[in-house]
Amino acid sequence: MSGTWGECLELSIFGESHGPGVGIVVNGLPAGIELDLDLINMEMGRRMPGKTSLATPRQEKDKYELVGGYFNSKTTGSPLCCMIWNQDQRSLDYEDIKGIVRPSHADFTARWKHAGFNDYRGGGHFSGRLTAPLVFAGAIAKQLLAKKGIVIGSHILSIGEVQEEPFDLRDVDFELLKELTEKEFPVIIEDKAGEMKDRILEAKKDEDSVGGVIEVGVANLPIGLGSPFFDSAESKIAHLLFSIPAVKGVEFGAGFHITKMKGSEANDGFILEDNQVRTTSNNNGGILGGITNGMPLVFRAAFKPTPSIGKVQRTVDVDKMEEVEISIKGRHDPCIVPRAVPVVEAAAALALLDLMIEKDGTGWMS
Amino acid sequence: MSGTWGECLELSIFGESHGPGVGIVVNGLPAGIELDLDLINMEMGRRMPGKTSLATPRQEKDKYELVGGYFNSKTTGSPLCCMIWNQDQRSLDYEDIKGIVRPSHADFTARWKHAGFNDYRGGGHFSGRLTAPLVFAGAIAKQLLAKKGIVIGSHILSIGEVQEEPFDLRDVDFELLKELTEKEFPVIIEDKAGEMKDRILEAKKDEDSVGGVIEVGVANLPIGLGSPFFDSAESKIAHLLFSIPAVKGVEFGAGFHITKMKGSEANDGFILEDNQVRTTSNNNGGILGGITNGMPLVFRAAFKPTPSIGKVQRTVDVDKMEEVEISIKGRHDPCIVPRAVPVVEAAAALALLDLMIEKDGTGWMS
Amino acid sequence: MSGTWGECLELSIFGESHGPGVGIVVNGLPAGIELDLDLINMEMGRRMPGKTSLATPRQEKDKYELVGGYFNSKTTGSPLCCMIWNQDQRSLDYEDIKGIVRPSHADFTARWKHAGFNDYRGGGHFSGRLTAPLVFAGAIAKQLLAKKGIVIGSHILSIGEVQEEPFDLRDVDFELLKELTEKEFPVIIEDKAGEMKDRILEAKKDEDSVGGVIEVGVANLPIGLGSPFFDSAESKIAHLLFSIPAVKGVEFGAGFHITKMKGSEANDGFILEDNQVRTTSNNNGGILGGITNGMPLVFRAAFKPTPSIGKVQRTVDVDKMEEVEISIKGRHDPCIVPRAVPVVEAAAALALLDLMIEKDGTGWMS
Amino acid sequence: MSGTWGECLELSIFGESHGPGVGIVVNGLPAGIELDLDLINMEMGRRMPGKTSLATPRQEKDKYELVGGYFNSKTTGSPLCCMIWNQDQRSLDYEDIKGIVRPSHADFTARWKHAGFNDYRGGGHFSGRLTAPLVFAGAIAKQLLAKKGIVIGSHILSIGEVQEEPFDLRDVDFELLKELTEKEFPVIIEDKAGEMKDRILEAKKDEDSVGGVIEVGVANLPIGLGSPFFDSAESKIAHLLFSIPAVKGVEFGAGFHITKMKGSEANDGFILEDNQVRTTSNNNGGILGGITNGMPLVFRAAFKPTPSIGKVQRTVDVDKMEEVEISIKGRHDPCIVPRAVPVVEAAAALALLDLMIEKDGTGWMS
Repeated sequence: MSGTWGECLELSIFGESHGPGVGIVVNGLPAGIELDLDLINMEMGRRMPGKTSLATPRQEKDKYELVGGYFNSKTTGSPLCCMIWNQDQRSLDYEDIKGIVRPSHADFTARWKHAGFNDYRGGGHFSGRLTAPLVFAGAIAKQLLAKKGIVIGSHILSIGEVQEEPFDLRDVDFELLKELTEKEFPVIIEDKAGEMKDRILEAKKDEDSVGGVIEVGVANLPIGLGSPFFDSAESKIAHLLFSIPAVKGVEFGAGFHITKMKGSEANDGFILEDNQVRTTSNNNGGILGGITNGMPLVFRAAFKPTPSIGKVQRTVDVDKMEEVEISIKGRHDPCIVPRAVPVVEAAAALALLDLMIEKDGTGWMS
Repeated sequence: MSGTWGECLELSIFGESHGPGVGIVVNGLPAGIELDLDLINMEMGRRMPGKTSLATPRQEKDKYELVGGYFNSKTTGSPLCCMIWNQDQRSLDYEDIKGIVRPSHADFTARWKHAGFNDYRGGGHFSGRLTAPLVFAGAIAKQLLAKKGIVIGSHILSIGEVQEEPFDLRDVDFELLKELTEKEFPVIIEDKAGEMKDRILEAKKDEDSVGGVIEVGVANLPIGLGSPFFDSAESKIAHLLFSIPAVKGVEFGAGFHITKMKGSEANDGFILEDNQVRTTSNNNGGILGGITNGMPLVFRAAFKPTPSIGKVQRTVDVDKMEEVEISIKGRHDPCIVPRAVPVVEAAAALALLDLMIEKDGTGWMS
Repeated sequence: MSGTWGECLELSIFGESHGPGVGIVVNGLPAGIELDLDLINMEMGRRMPGKTSLATPRQEKDKYELVGGYFNSKTTGSPLCCMIWNQDQRSLDYEDIKGIVRPSHADFTARWKHAGFNDYRGGGHFSGRLTAPLVFAGAIAKQLLAKKGIVIGSHILSIGEVQEEPFDLRDVDFELLKELTEKEFPVIIEDKAGEMKDRILEAKKDEDSVGGVIEVGVANLPIGLGSPFFDSAESKIAHLLFSIPAVKGVEFGAGFHITKMKGSEANDGFILEDNQVRTTSNNNGGILGGITNGMPLVFRAAFKPTPSIGKVQRTVDVDKMEEVEISIKGRHDPCIVPRAVPVVEAAAALALLDLMIEKDGTGWMS
Repeated sequence: MSGTWGECLELSIFGESHGPGVGIVVNGLPAGIELDLDLINMEMGRRMPGKTSLATPRQEKDKYELVGGYFNSKTTGSPLCCMIWNQDQRSLDYEDIKGIVRPSHADFTARWKHAGFNDYRGGGHFSGRLTAPLVFAGAIAKQLLAKKGIVIGSHILSIGEVQEEPFDLRDVDFELLKELTEKEFPVIIEDKAGEMKDRILEAKKDEDSVGGVIEVGVANLPIGLGSPFFDSAESKIAHLLFSIPAVKGVEFGAGFHITKMKGSEANDGFILEDNQVRTTSNNNGGILGGITNGMPLVFRAAFKPTPSIGKVQRTVDVDKMEEVEISIKGRHDPCIVPRAVPVVEAAAALALLDLMIEKDGTGWMS
């Protein structure tokens, strides 16, 4: 059903981009967690628009308010609810294009599914703004995973056709990931950042947009998270990733490329290192049979170019049922990828935390 | 949690490859459905091993028994339970390699997660054999979707580096899909079948294996299936796909390639055709904002090469904690892709049926 | 897990009595419902404290704000979120008794479960105030059920030992229930209202409290809601009822009394009335095999006396781990029963709406 | 939805009384549990018919077969599936009364809900026989709870109007419960057993039936199981209890009687005993705010008289839509209560185990 996710950790998301605000209820958190507000602010800051020329000049302060489950600076163990109030929306920008469904946006499907009663202003509940509460919840998940030494980091693998070096699947370690987390524009080969930014600015100048791929690594995961049917680690992570607007592909380890390898090349042989079972390669991306195997978990998410562009496009005014042209003049990101980095990390953190709680649940029984 | 899936249609899977059998409970089916046993048999036949030289010579009859929810040749509306009894297992084949975890298989993670108590024979609950009950349930979902004119079909897009023509995303229609369904080795360009088969037989001869990509299309879907957060059509389908053993990547529409397009190229402009809103292209693969938009739904699933190969591999005997070599001599598929076709279709059918029931649920209210 | 409920209609509740506020997210509502704000206000008014000398003089305005899923005065089909901001709390009243767990309250168990991190002020998340968002959601459910002619009504069957006439199980009809809904103190025999109120005022004078039983009827339900295992109509309704603070018993139809009848007395014989299958009696309370049978659905909920009393009680200061005496001087209801009437009705309405959506979901399939 | 239950422990039930068999899938069990087959057999034996003159002479062997999740005499951690094959059904007994819906049975509602496609033989999926797999699963839950010293026991509080002494709510201890578990007809005051049995035999002679109340106690529960909204310990237990055929009422602690007490009588004062917080009385039945408080958990379940009686009753032939008389001559229990004892205990064990797993899940986080 729309709006909720999770088995052991349960999320309930709500809100619209141009209504009072957006928010999330997080169930299943333990009591007594002093939330790392700096981390939350940092993560939300990474997602926030209006910071650089690469992104929309909209100023969303993303100020959140904890309206439940938080007392004396700690979680209470009851549902945690976070409201993020909206500011700086200009609803009039959108009123003009009410009947004109924007190509590649959810305007048409939202309108049809909800019989025209959806809040159409700026995408409403279908807006990328809904990822703000996801990043809030993900920051808490990250904090809890960090307690176990688990770190999640990522880099921008490509912007359009500009590609940087992928992770060495076997050697995605704590230090590298930590380092990436601190970068404003996370790439491994620093020179590539400039090239990618240029590509984005070029698209901006052209009133066009570009997409890209984010590659995420998770280090220090315990062995044993996930199940074969139906809650594989891949399934849980992909489920959340594919609810992020603009994601059209997800792959783990060698991903689509593994289909071009022979079994003798693709298989990750087992070896002993310091008396631990490890693999010689990591084409499976840290997951075997749906279960984490102790190697770095690596996945990639493909983001389509921002649908909102100034260039003239064909579309339909569904109120009048006639074909029209549209040129979207609003304040839009020419590329969503840099701001999406904390969102995909949040999705991974939440999925993995859910699996860790599940794994822990029967600990006392056996 | 391991074992169950679905909101409106609920699956509960169980069993092992070398125990008494495998099975599935399907909840949420209406009463009075005369199951199309021919269709079920055909779908299970497509998945069944032992038919050609391309596949394992194991003879699984996959004879199923309906042990609940079926009366007078119709569904009763109560949980439908199907048992598929095991035959022709040779457990001794596996006893020798009990401590020796097979590379790229779930042996190691299953053993660790379940503290060594997993049924290790032939993968046990982690075996590809568990896809047989999935295909059973998927055949029922297909039958019900067909009532609404919806058809699911697919072709083998690639085997190793042998690639055939992809779907024309905008023109995946009923006839094409129906035709593909009837092919023993479904490709669009018939010549490619031979080339792909050769590639598989070559791998077999080399005691090696190959992977591939399956591309699936769904025609005649209604507009409005899925939700933005968190049960997007992509999320639901990908969740099931990623629980199929060997799937390492999933993409919709133009998928990873869309990241290399500009917004002005990637966006699917809206037009009117016969007074229906359609799109000029279909790079979004029939889904916008997580919701089906009436265009053909197209996705691809990447399968890794069969992990079981005769070639010598490095691995570890985790009982003795020592490195060993392994050469897997059993009766294995050199390529799982042809037999996986009905499995990915089953996953798609089940996910879409679940979304259709959900969509229908509030029909009377508004 | 704490905080969420429902299959087809999904609730997510949050908040504390002395924090910013309480609220609820409702998923699964259709789009385009013009909420009956008068009904919502009326229902919330029935629950609201501070109205008469029978209740606590606390003034909770229960002003709610719709912060998501509502646009142009109609539901959007996206998650509906309602915030009810807190007012008129006097947190200092509670600070004094922080370590002193109030008998028959959740203070002790909340503190233990959440390791002392719970918001202890006025019960926090365990407060009866959390029933306000439940009544909000229940009012919407009532509105939707009313579209199908279904009406829910109830009367106060007993306050302490003062008992009024129970429903005639077979003849709980629309008119009677409608009438009861409009009463400020709903009883069938008007004289009993005075007697009950006297009993409450007497308890108040004594700095003591009383409990009671609420009997609820639902008329015009369709046949077929619920399932035998495990979501019987009784299970669904009882699940929600037993999450209402102070409910210690729930019974359907003749309830506990049916155990004293012979089968020949208890069984509800079937007859034909206007060519409809009806029963001669209704000891099963409108539910057979977990499924509604078209007769009036009748159940009773037992409420314990308000735990907060001025009378001196024994308890423990769990900070100091020493026994102490307590006399609770706050502004408390001497009897919660009258204000609980809309809460039990809300629970029934929500459970039944969930079952109606489920029943409707597979309509197109068979 | 019909058929599944549970959050952390997940059940999926299926089957019919006169089809191939009944069964259950249990998800969420840890690996490596050597099932206590003696306990399972004992519990299933307690439920089994055909043992004494008090019960139906039907001979159900209730032989179960583990068809998944069990290997080398231990659970594997994968879904555990148990089939109980049917024997000794005489379907012809029922064919005669196919259109004639039995009063107080599910025949009418099952037929209506499932549009006449339900398996009507002996109640089909609505039969009390479905409680056999529940008892199987419950026996495993009991075994796991026993590891923590938790014991569940019960006695027959009443048969018709014959009532025995209720539990002393505060003093339901391990020894008493253990003792009751071993009794063939569990009562505290031994003399009452004869009186109750006489009452049952009298009903049998009269071709009539009687109901009764089962009182269940649970000792040594940890503090902290359950949540206020919406998964209170009461909610979880009642949900399962109300899916047991014939249960029409459930109450905890002093139950309905608490409504007649004053707050000063009903409240359970806190005291210190051996430096542990305990209560002076236990009218809340071991649950405060939906959470176990360390006192004995006590509840009662009301069972209606067996609907199947030889006495002539009015009913309707819904095929012909005409009123008829019915006298049910099959082999039926004149009272279901004695055989229901292990069923209510199973329900309690399953609900409590689910809550224990949930409680344990976030252990590592705080």
